[in-house]
Amino acid sequence: MLIVAERINATRKRIGAALAERDAKLIVKEAKNQAAAGAAFIDINAGADPAKETEDLVWMTRAVQGAVETPLCFDSASPEALSAALDVHSRFLASKSDGRKIMINSINGEKSRLDGILPLVVKYEAEVVALAMDEAGMPTTAADRVAKVSAILEAAAAVGVPSARIYADPCIQPVSTDQTQARAVIDAIRELRAKFPELNYICGLSNVSFGLPQRRLLNRTFLVLLMGAGLNAAVLDPTEPGMMSAILAAEALLGQDEWCMQYITASRDGKLDDA
Amino acid sequence: MLIVAERINATRKRIGAALAERDAKLIVKEAKNQAAAGAAFIDINAGADPAKETEDLVWMTRAVQGAVETPLCFDSASPEALSAALDVHSRFLASKSDGRKIMINSINGEKSRLDGILPLVVKYEAEVVALAMDEAGMPTTAADRVAKVSAILEAAAAVGVPSARIYADPCIQPVSTDQTQARAVIDAIRELRAKFPELNYICGLSNVSFGLPQRRLLNRTFLVLLMGAGLNAAVLDPTEPGMMSAILAAEALLGQDEWCMQYITASRDGKLDDA
Repeated sequence: MLIVAERINATRKRIGAALAERDAKLIVKEAKNQAAAGAAFIDINAGADPAKETEDLVWMTRAVQGAVETPLCFDSASPEALSAALDVHSRFLASKSDGRKIMINSINGEKSRLDGILPLVVKYEAEVVALAMDEAGMPTTAADRVAKVSAILEAAAAVGVPSARIYADPCIQPVSTDQTQARAVIDAIRELRAKFPELNYICGLSNVSFGLPQRRLLNRTFLVLLMGAGLNAAVLDPTEPGMMSAILAAEALLGQDEWCMQYITASRDGKLDDA
Repeated sequence: MLIVAERINATRKRIGAALAERDAKLIVKEAKNQAAAGAAFIDINAGADPAKETEDLVWMTRAVQGAVETPLCFDSASPEALSAALDVHSRFLASKSDGRKIMINSINGEKSRLDGILPLVVKYEAEVVALAMDEAGMPTTAADRVAKVSAILEAAAAVGVPSARIYADPCIQPVSTDQTQARAVIDAIRELRAKFPELNYICGLSNVSFGLPQRRLLNRTFLVLLMGAGLNAAVLDPTEPGMMSAILAAEALLGQDEWCMQYITASRDGKLDDA
């Protein structure tokens, strides 16, 4: 399970304030904590104020890139902000002969997003999250999700981005308002995995539990269901109690943990929460 | 999710001692606790001493049947013990005009088990657990499980037992010794569910985690994975911390809880554990 750690997001109050005050300390601490908790990528989102997003994302990139060795995931819908931040980051990596990966979060099926962001995916040989949505809006059924992802894959293939660098996100919507939505995402991942086995599958977790109590329980249970369907990456908070325990248990059960050694080691180190 | 509550099992030390001393108090308390925690059936297993199993199971039946209104699941491999206990229980139900269901745990594909126990399933119109094993032993692959269950269904259909009364159990083996086993059971349930949609699917949980630490975490994570594949019943301990929470969360996510009301109510009543 590849974890994209979600805490450095300017729409969160404390991160937004730190960004506004150019206070790097809190942001660096969040980056280090998430790296230590198991993040494969640290997501950075500076999208609190669209008018300032480019300079904010560049500042955030500079604040984080030297503080951790973990790859960064550049989270923006703005080609301009992404372009500026990726330029700064790629120069930094080149100067250090640092070969770490880069992820862009995200493209979707909208022509403007594809035209604006796919060239950056090509230029920086980046991994990229591809959301199963387009001009027609959010997907509803599993079949709708399969169709939207298929269209994005065609566009990506046309400019030479291989499936192995694409993380398809089926776009979860809250089950509180529509009880078919989690099932549709689970089915979409299973169908897509059968159709495109070389593709990666990613999902944000927290939307699923919007409007319901004890959301952490729902979020981690949803993650386990998605892992059973073929999810191999997730946007989540690895420092959340219970989350890494659920992942390690599911990996052991799904045959992704030889001799269950990761699970046994985590238990021995006191890292597993058990209600 | 239909829960068959597993705690009244004479191979557990305290239950075995209570059975030997004919001390009904502990056994009745276990039955009541499990009923209150959400059991649909209370499993009773008196198989500690094969030489005394018939009289022991009859005594256990008498101890439990009047103490709770929950249906009983008669857990034995012995046609003689089952026959005696079912006779006592059916007379008791008839005397009270009590229409509660009866479950037998279990048949499998062995000719002796089918010949000895299927007639009891017919006679008492019982629900029955059907284990995916036979003279050739325990199953290993998903395909093996599908074949073994299919054979039992044929034998049951031949004597008029409908699929809707059968609970197919794919027989989980520990992942500590073979990391493919949980995946094989998950796949078997998905394949069987597609082939026999009217059949029920049940599994015991605790074998999966044998030999590993923090087994409750593995057991409830396995249950969530199985529910995603189509499991609709389980042999488990509903009083175990975290277990009912995982079930309620998975039901809400899988569209089995209209407007998530069971989940919301359980949360409001303080019944959900959230690590």
